This record gives sequence, C-alpha cells and structure tokens, in this order.
Amino acid sequence: MFQETPRLPSRDGVLRAAEKIAAILPPTPLLPVEIGGIRCWVKAENLQPIGAFKIRGGWHRLTDLSDDQRARGVVAVSSGNHAQGVAWAARKLGISATIVMPRDAPQVKLDATRALGAEVVLYNRPGEDREEVARKICDASGATLVHAFADPWVIEGQGTAGIEITAQLGRQPSRILACCGGGGLAAGLSLACPDSAIVPVEPFGWDTLGRSLLARSIVRMGENPPSTICDALQPMSSAQINLDVLLDRSDPGVAVTDAEVRSAQRLAFSRLRLVLEPGGAAALAAALSGKVELDENTVIMLTGGNTDPDSFAAVITGTH
Amino acid sequence: MFQETPRLPSRDGVLRAAEKIAAILPPTPLLPVEIGGIRCWVKAENLQPIGAFKIRGGWHRLTDLSDDQRARGVVAVSSGNHAQGVAWAARKLGISATIVMPRDAPQVKLDATRALGAEVVLYNRPGEDREEVARKICDASGATLVHAFADPWVIEGQGTAGIEITAQLGRQPSRILACCGGGGLAAGLSLACPDSAIVPVEPFGWDTLGRSLLARSIVRMGENPPSTICDALQPMSSAQINLDVLLDRSDPGVAVTDAEVRSAQRLAFSRLRLVLEPGGAAALAAALSGKVELDENTVIMLTGGNTDPDSFAAVITGTH
Repeated sequence: MFQETPRLPSRDGVLRAAEKIAAILPPTPLLPVEIGGIRCWVKAENLQPIGAFKIRGGWHRLTDLSDDQRARGVVAVSSGNHAQGVAWAARKLGISATIVMPRDAPQVKLDATRALGAEVVLYNRPGEDREEVARKICDASGATLVHAFADPWVIEGQGTAGIEITAQLGRQPSRILACCGGGGLAAGLSLACPDSAIVPVEPFGWDTLGRSLLARSIVRMGENPPSTICDALQPMSSAQINLDVLLDRSDPGVAVTDAEVRSAQRLAFSRLRLVLEPGGAAALAAALSGKVELDENTVIMLTGGNTDPDSFAAVITGTH
Repeated sequence: MFQETPRLPSRDGVLRAAEKIAAILPPTPLLPVEIGGIRCWVKAENLQPIGAFKIRGGWHRLTDLSDDQRARGVVAVSSGNHAQGVAWAARKLGISATIVMPRDAPQVKLDATRALGAEVVLYNRPGEDREEVARKICDASGATLVHAFADPWVIEGQGTAGIEITAQLGRQPSRILACCGGGGLAAGLSLACPDSAIVPVEPFGWDTLGRSLLARSIVRMGENPPSTICDALQPMSSAQINLDVLLDRSDPGVAVTDAEVRSAQRLAFSRLRLVLEPGGAAALAAALSGKVELDENTVIMLTGGNTDPDSFAAVITGTH
C-alpha cells in the first residue's frame, strides 16, 4: 500500500527537522483565545506561506533526498495541502514534482499547486486508486513518493510545530488538539511533546485513526463513506507507522460534525480574524463543542486556510 | 475642537508605552508577502484581541490616568476600533467607558464594543457633531475624553507597533505604509521609526492628512464628502498635534479607491488567510496598486479585521 521504509520517526528527527525549518520559516503565531471562560491557545498554521502546516513535512523530506533522488523528482498524492507543501519545497530546491490530486479538490488548491510549478495529475475520488496512479508514475520515472502521512520524515516535519509551541509557551502544552486525516501531525506532535496529551480530531464518520487506536490495528473506511466538508481529512485509513507512534500515547480523540466545523470557521472569522478551511477548523470545532476538556495550557492546531471564496462566504453568512 | 493638552508626544513616550504593552500583549506577527516579485512584510494588527491596533493607544492612555481620573470614567468617539481599544483597556482597569459611535457603524463593531462592557451612545454620521456629543458627556460627568488620534498618549501607543516591527525585522524598515484616518498611527510610527519613510494611505476623496501635509496646515473635508467603504478612515480632518509630528517627516502619502481596497481584501483572504476590514486593507491596497515603491524592508500595516460577514462575503465573491 505505502512505500515501505525501515526507518522509524524519532524525537531526534523532529529536533533536526525543527532546526532546518527554523532556518527558512519564521514560527507561526501562537495566539490566545477564550473559550467558555478559559484562555487557551491556537497555533495559526494557516499563516504558513502555503496556508497549511504541510510545508513542514515537505521541506524536511525533500531536503534529505540525495542528489540522485532529487534528479529523479518527487511524486505526492494529496487533496491539496500536502500537494502545496511538496510543490513549495520542490520549487525552492529545483526538484520536479508531480502531484496526484482528486478532481473534486477545491479550485484554490489545484490553482495554487500548479502556480508552485508542480505537474498536477487528476483522479476521481471515489473509484480510482490514487496510490496506484502515483505508483505507476514512480515506476516509470524513478521518482520518490512522498506520502502525505505514512512517512518518517513527514511525521517528523509536522512535529516541528510542537517544538515551536513549546518554545512559545515556555513549556509543553497540557493537551494538543490536532486536526487529523492520516495522523501525520498527531504522530509528529506526540514525538515533539511527549508530556502533552494528543487529541486527534477527525470528521464525523471518518474517524479511522480513532477507531484504529481503539482496535490497536488499522481500520479502513467501509464502502459508501458519509460526506464531509473536510476535504483535507479524508484518507481511507491511517497507516501502521502512524499507529505505532500513537498507540499508548494518544487519546482515541473525537469526531466533529460539519455543523460544528462551520461554527468553528465562523468563530475564527469573527473573533480571530483568520480564514480557516473546514479541515483546518476541526480541532477548534472540538474545543468549542465541549467534547474536550480545556485549560490554560491547551493548544488548538489551526491547520489550514485554503478554501474557495464561494464556500467560505456561504459558511460565514450561514447560507451554505 | 479637540481636548487641548500642552504635552507633545515623544519617542521616549513611545518606548515607555512599548514596555507597558509588551507586558500585556504579545507582538503581532510580521509576515512575509510577495508583491510583484518583491518580498516585503505585513504587520498583522488585525490579530490583536480586539482585531485592530487601537488597543495600543487605549492601553497607554488609560494606564496613565490618575486614580481620580479613573474614578470619573472615560469617553471616546469612534466608528468602532478605537471604541474597542478604549473599552478593552477600561474593562481590564475597572474604568467605566462611554463610546460615541455613528449609527451606521458595522454591526460587529457596535456589538463588540457593548460586549466589552462599554456604554454606546449613537449619533447620525452626517449632521450631528460627534465631538459636541462627547463633550457634553464629559462636561456632565467629569470623564476624560480619549481622542482617537489627537492625543499624545494615543499617538505614542500606536507607535509601539513600530518598536515591535524594528525588533522583528532587526532594523527600522525602509518604508512603512500605514492606513490613515486622522494620523495617529502615522505620527506614532514616525516617532518610533525616525529612519523609516512613513507613507500614510487614505481613502480616495478622504485624503485630508495628505492635503494637510501639502498645505502645511489642517485641511478639512468639504460639504458632501464622497462615499467610501473604509468606515474606519473617515474623520473630517486630521489635527494639529498629528500634523506637527508628521510635517517634514512623512510623505504626503497616497489615496486608494474602493475597488483597490476590495482587491487587497481578496488578496489577504486568498494568499494571507487573514480577514481585513476595508480600512484595514488600505495600506495593502496602496502596495498592490503600484503607487508606492516597495523593497524587501518595506512594511505594510494591516490595521483591522472587524467586518460584517455579509460585507466580507460580498467582497471575496466579487458580488458587492
């Protein structure tokens, strides 16, 4: 299924990645927010140059490629944020990038990925096997597949957000709420902040990581998955490498509904003056829903802000 | 016209204000943005707790009130951002605040000011003399008038943004583009950053500060002023105290049209993932319009993000 690699992600790897990322990207802001009378924190990863935290894993992975690997290019599969993370890093390093994206990805994500110089190959979200599409490209070109979450570098790279948070807060958070698709960010944060409780937040009906943590083995989505507005959080399953890191360290987490996600986008608009895409607002939705205990050392990850104007307008005016 | 005070604002005053503000508010982010191939910077004052830089002047002024003055309360006149700055500081210090606001102020600004515990007194924007309304309240209660820009503390407080920028950039900027109503921010920045060129940006037809700088004396708006979407940048004139600071230090600045302001709001939405109100996007509009030279040490002030959802939705979808 996934490109296998014997290397396991490590805290040392996260620290090494954090040094590389600090050299090229300023820390994203950690901003106070009051929820239900408790002042906690949001980490505004939507303010990254590509509008999402995925730039971290992309940079750590691509900078560790050998000259020979760089010459053969990279391939990624992504609904749009990992796509931009890999494309951004590839352009900066002069590496050719091919990104396999679903035909129904938000237009802003398709446009932005192409604007970063990547070649975009489209597939149909239900039906075509996107991993298969990517593998064929890799087989033909010798390119390296950069998986969106089942990759030790990507996990370590995403974890660097936790190193920044610890420096900004002056300690490890009590708890970190992380928007969760495959679990790359959650796994990276658990390595970066071993003293923090990690709470993965998934879309309702798409809580494959949560169910995998409870089952202690990978649970895949069944046939006819429910719809969700969180286009960034729809992998068909997590992966063993993520589960291995998170087992015995992470809560099974919580799931949030589309309505809860929209409320969180509205609050981010009106009280934080931040633009969040649905998937980027999932952790905030969990905090607002009362499903997670909050305290003054709780950090809520705001993971992305790439959303089409029409969709965002419908959410903030309540006419979706 | 304005409450007279013999004290002049000073750079020492800005430095003292900066210490007070650093003790209570984290620096707002300075974020990179590429415009026309040049990487310059935006100072995201829309991420202040009240969504605007006005919290700075409000805090510096109110913390310097005597116990006796605090007991008698404060009065401010504002279309909504200075209102929230004063109300926020007043609530934190246990001071009663009365804010005179135009009846046509954005609903979010009226709601937020009341939510901060201030008493809001409405007036009709063309017709009623808002200074007169405020003076009557002060005469009756002995409250202190906190002017939105013609006040040495307010000027010094707004200037603290320039101290933060200098620390974040590692030097004074070559040039600072500042959204401009009465000129409190522009005057404060020119004290904070004497080596930087200050470029006030006003709405088209409302460039009273620019015209005052050219005439070297206060020029007031005439009858029948043109309409502007920049509700925060509509004073009928600047004031002598602001002009005195800015004369011989500041460019006359530039004026931006409503269409240019909307383009800037759209770019902030899609590329910076930030919510800006029209008046808060004026400096960015000037940068995008090509009316101001940019370089890698240019800083663009994003001064506010308090906008009604319907208005913002219309702007980003292009259906205003």
